[in-house]
Amino acid sequence: MSDLSNTNLAELLVSMGKLANDAAKTMRGISGAARNKSLLIMAKKLQTNRAEIAAANEKDLTAAMANNLSAPKVDRLRLTDRIIEDLIEGLNQVVALPDPIGAIEDFKILEHGLKVGKMRIPLGVVGMIFESRPNVTVEAASLAIKSGNAIILRGGSEAFYSNQVLAKLFQDALVQAGLPKHAVQLIPVTDRAAITAMCHLDSCIDVMIPRGGEQLIRLVSEQARMPVLKHDKGVCHMFVDESADLQMATKLVVNAKTQRPGVCNALETLLIHEKVAQELLPQLTAAMTNVEFRVCPKTANILQQAGLPAATPATEEDWQAEYLDLILAVKIVDDIDQAIDHIAQYSSKHTESIVTNNHEHATRFVDLVDSSLVLVNASTRFNDGFQLGLGAEIGISTSKLHAFGPMGVKELTTLKFIGYGNGNLRT
Amino acid sequence: MSDLSNTNLAELLVSMGKLANDAAKTMRGISGAARNKSLLIMAKKLQTNRAEIAAANEKDLTAAMANNLSAPKVDRLRLTDRIIEDLIEGLNQVVALPDPIGAIEDFKILEHGLKVGKMRIPLGVVGMIFESRPNVTVEAASLAIKSGNAIILRGGSEAFYSNQVLAKLFQDALVQAGLPKHAVQLIPVTDRAAITAMCHLDSCIDVMIPRGGEQLIRLVSEQARMPVLKHDKGVCHMFVDESADLQMATKLVVNAKTQRPGVCNALETLLIHEKVAQELLPQLTAAMTNVEFRVCPKTANILQQAGLPAATPATEEDWQAEYLDLILAVKIVDDIDQAIDHIAQYSSKHTESIVTNNHEHATRFVDLVDSSLVLVNASTRFNDGFQLGLGAEIGISTSKLHAFGPMGVKELTTLKFIGYGNGNLRT
Repeated sequence: MSDLSNTNLAELLVSMGKLANDAAKTMRGISGAARNKSLLIMAKKLQTNRAEIAAANEKDLTAAMANNLSAPKVDRLRLTDRIIEDLIEGLNQVVALPDPIGAIEDFKILEHGLKVGKMRIPLGVVGMIFESRPNVTVEAASLAIKSGNAIILRGGSEAFYSNQVLAKLFQDALVQAGLPKHAVQLIPVTDRAAITAMCHLDSCIDVMIPRGGEQLIRLVSEQARMPVLKHDKGVCHMFVDESADLQMATKLVVNAKTQRPGVCNALETLLIHEKVAQELLPQLTAAMTNVEFRVCPKTANILQQAGLPAATPATEEDWQAEYLDLILAVKIVDDIDQAIDHIAQYSSKHTESIVTNNHEHATRFVDLVDSSLVLVNASTRFNDGFQLGLGAEIGISTSKLHAFGPMGVKELTTLKFIGYGNGNLRT
Repeated sequence: MSDLSNTNLAELLVSMGKLANDAAKTMRGISGAARNKSLLIMAKKLQTNRAEIAAANEKDLTAAMANNLSAPKVDRLRLTDRIIEDLIEGLNQVVALPDPIGAIEDFKILEHGLKVGKMRIPLGVVGMIFESRPNVTVEAASLAIKSGNAIILRGGSEAFYSNQVLAKLFQDALVQAGLPKHAVQLIPVTDRAAITAMCHLDSCIDVMIPRGGEQLIRLVSEQARMPVLKHDKGVCHMFVDESADLQMATKLVVNAKTQRPGVCNALETLLIHEKVAQELLPQLTAAMTNVEFRVCPKTANILQQAGLPAATPATEEDWQAEYLDLILAVKIVDDIDQAIDHIAQYSSKHTESIVTNNHEHATRFVDLVDSSLVLVNASTRFNDGFQLGLGAEIGISTSKLHAFGPMGVKELTTLKFIGYGNGNLRT
């Protein structure tokens, strides 16, 4: 499906963009009850069309194996019964969330007599780019519809057939609920040219949300003419301070690094105050025998003096790395200021945590570290829409504007000013 | 000052960007009291350095007249005593605003025991591009400093000397207050290449705010790799509905069109319900003899039948025009739906108003019109940070994300998640 010429591709995307724009316009007049109805119908369709979904998924899996995709990648493609159940449960959870649209905030009568407030409205048309996992088609579309938006999805080539059938079922559900069919559209082209063409559709797409690797994020940031909410990599740090409870610190490091190493909120770099390194490092290496350490020279020294196995020396790349694997970069720092400086230089503004019992240090770390979630004495793994109480999540934004951190339904909306007068003139 | 090679320009901007980044980092630890102090010192400097400011301004005015700039353009350059007084008064008003930084919202204990909230933080480094009026240097910088940001300004070439002296005074004020000097920087190059170079500095600039003509907005939207808050043109509409009080409607149209025609919230296109056009048009033409009308064929017919002077026929361009002048496009529509459709097609999402006494129409117009301020029975001239109670304004955003409408101090900030635990692990 990548055999369209660039001209035809641009034409296809313009026509999809216009349909999405029209759908977004219609969506502005659709009640929350009707939007919920479409999600409930979609949940039923997932239940009753399991064979059709499995057949399409099988095609993707066969192609993936023929293309020698790695086992974890093939795994991420597979729409197991469990994943379908989770999607159905997820749709029901989204239905249960309060409707954000039309809510009015800060309504007041100003001195000159105008009654002014801010009304929550959909963003309009969301452009979403994602890789591999086909369940994102349903998750992203359900959040877009709940929040009154239209969405144009561009999934990865590996999930081509699975994404197609899921998007088709969603469109059927929209039509059955009386919603515009084109509020959910999947681009039937999976090459890079489709991304560039999307990025130039600023007349039709209000925001781009790229979720994927560094190259994708860079391409979209450079090409997009509309706002971009980046879902960038997570180079997450934990700093174990001088006053830390070292038993607690060990448990937190183990949890942050190993509980699910392949996700963006997993720990990648551990910073240790030099005064506690000698005591902490043996505990850590004993607790994480399955983790490879990449260490600074001071850490290497301590390991050697303690008669512990030598670790790989860390290079500049290690401080920038999102391993997504059982590897941990370790650096000893002089004090909290050096820890904060290291984070300012290398963090991807995703998640950072301090382990400390010093109140002033806890406060300073929270105030000065510029990341979407800053924690005290807690695992980095908490940066997640469900864990932070948002009820759903379209991803984690590392862009500071509009939404910084996990994005739920409310983050897919904006506020416009409204004013009621009685012939009010400006003087 | 446009004689730098592109390489030198890029190097200059990278070094300015790094200085701004460092300043932004320092600003995160500066108290609101210290930020206010720098603004009060700046207010004093404006008072005591009037001669220096006037001399620099005179250079700009001489150059402007030598270059045959139009009288209104020369006028916008002039830093009169009144404008300096207004700047001083503005600085005092900004000081009096509450400090947004560090405020924590939605703090609660979640089910798993983590205490989570959202802390208001500066955006970081703001890149601001503006044309002509040199007072924007002081206004934009004061809002950036109040909200804990650093700012890189790129003003228009006409105000080169005035901007230089104002930025220098601001830097002196910062230093005297113990703030980082480079929290306010003015790019000493005013050609387009400087804009493009800024747009590629996404490693240093967190958000771009272009304020100016269509070409500037388009250039920045296309080139910027960071988020852009567009301050686009205002193609503002008023729709006079069938049930409108026509005396009120006439007053509102006159106010919106003529009270200050050269600004973005002035009325540009008037839509009239066909059932009231015959009665309204003679009142309007009588009340606005100084306004040129560009009219649809139906309007032309009514004017002719009423024996009124003929008006210029409107072309497609007229429906897209931001005249910023005593010109008004007029179109007769069948009903409110046609009015809403016309607005959806031609509006710049700035300000739209309905004049009506029909409750359902008022509600529908407010719900369905997708602009930063939607009004009922009020002049479009109210779309302004001061009029809407924000206390200050860096401009009016026509981008829907992050801030839609007038942007004050709070709109130059964002929220990060913070979490306090006691060894909390993810299960």
